[in-house]
Amino acid sequence: MEPKSGCFYCDNCEPLFSLMTEVCTLKASRVFLFRDQKNPGRCVVQYKEHKTELFQLTREERADFMDDVAAVAQAVWKLYQPQKINYATYGDTVPHLHVHVVPKTEGGVSWGGPFSDQLPKVFLSEEEQAKAIADLRAELGA
Amino acid sequence: MEPKSGCFYCDNCEPLFSLMTEVCTLKASRVFLFRDQKNPGRCVVQYKEHKTELFQLTREERADFMDDVAAVAQAVWKLYQPQKINYATYGDTVPHLHVHVVPKTEGGVSWGGPFSDQLPKVFLSEEEQAKAIADLRAELGA
Repeated sequence: MEPKSGCFYCDNCEPLFSLMTEVCTLKASRVFLFRDQKNPGRCVVQYKEHKTELFQLTREERADFMDDVAAVAQAVWKLYQPQKINYATYGDTVPHLHVHVVPKTEGGVSWGGPFSDQLPKVFLSEEEQAKAIADLRAELGA
Repeated sequence: MEPKSGCFYCDNCEPLFSLMTEVCTLKASRVFLFRDQKNPGRCVVQYKEHKTELFQLTREERADFMDDVAAVAQAVWKLYQPQKINYATYGDTVPHLHVHVVPKTEGGVSWGGPFSDQLPKVFLSEEEQAKAIADLRAELGA
């Protein structure tokens, strides 16, 4: 067994799966559906290797990753029809490069401000989550 | 005179210049120093044309833009030596594609959480701002 790296994306362990569920892999990334769906369609796109800053990637690696981010955003756009997508890479304490893809709807949760993990969470039923994941896979051709 | 578009990036008018000061242009973007420097080194990278979502750009356009974002992040990293850079595109009410490049320091403002525009602001003196802009230009070769 590989020793644990201390990065929950690399180690594939908690709290990763308490926060998000894998949808598919794309050319440079792994895509997750965020469990808290108070912004319906919220996903995470994780870079395939343990890098922590965009400038650590070559132009081609970064272009591949951002193609994936854009593809996920476009799939979410089509499926959930928000007014805007927010894209955020924070990672102060989980630095593995990942982008939160967060649909925002006028009049909906956190419209006009940063999305928040401090507001009450909304979880899907198992059936709803399975459908959301299947729809994303179909839209992404994955 | 061009008619106003209603986008403050395109119109080059307030509140743009009350929020940020132009540093330089790069191949696909315009770079600004954010006036509120409570996260020292915070910048904004604005896409050169009025697009609102990453998936509206071609791969090459997006790669050029993200090269610029990465270059700004790397310049900020070298000049300010943070522990992490946060990258965020929100834009619910100002949808013109732009990325906030926000350095974060362990124990510093908003470490471990999203950066915030609700906390007290920190403004530089004119001399400090001029030096910050000159340093960024030098680092970016602009």
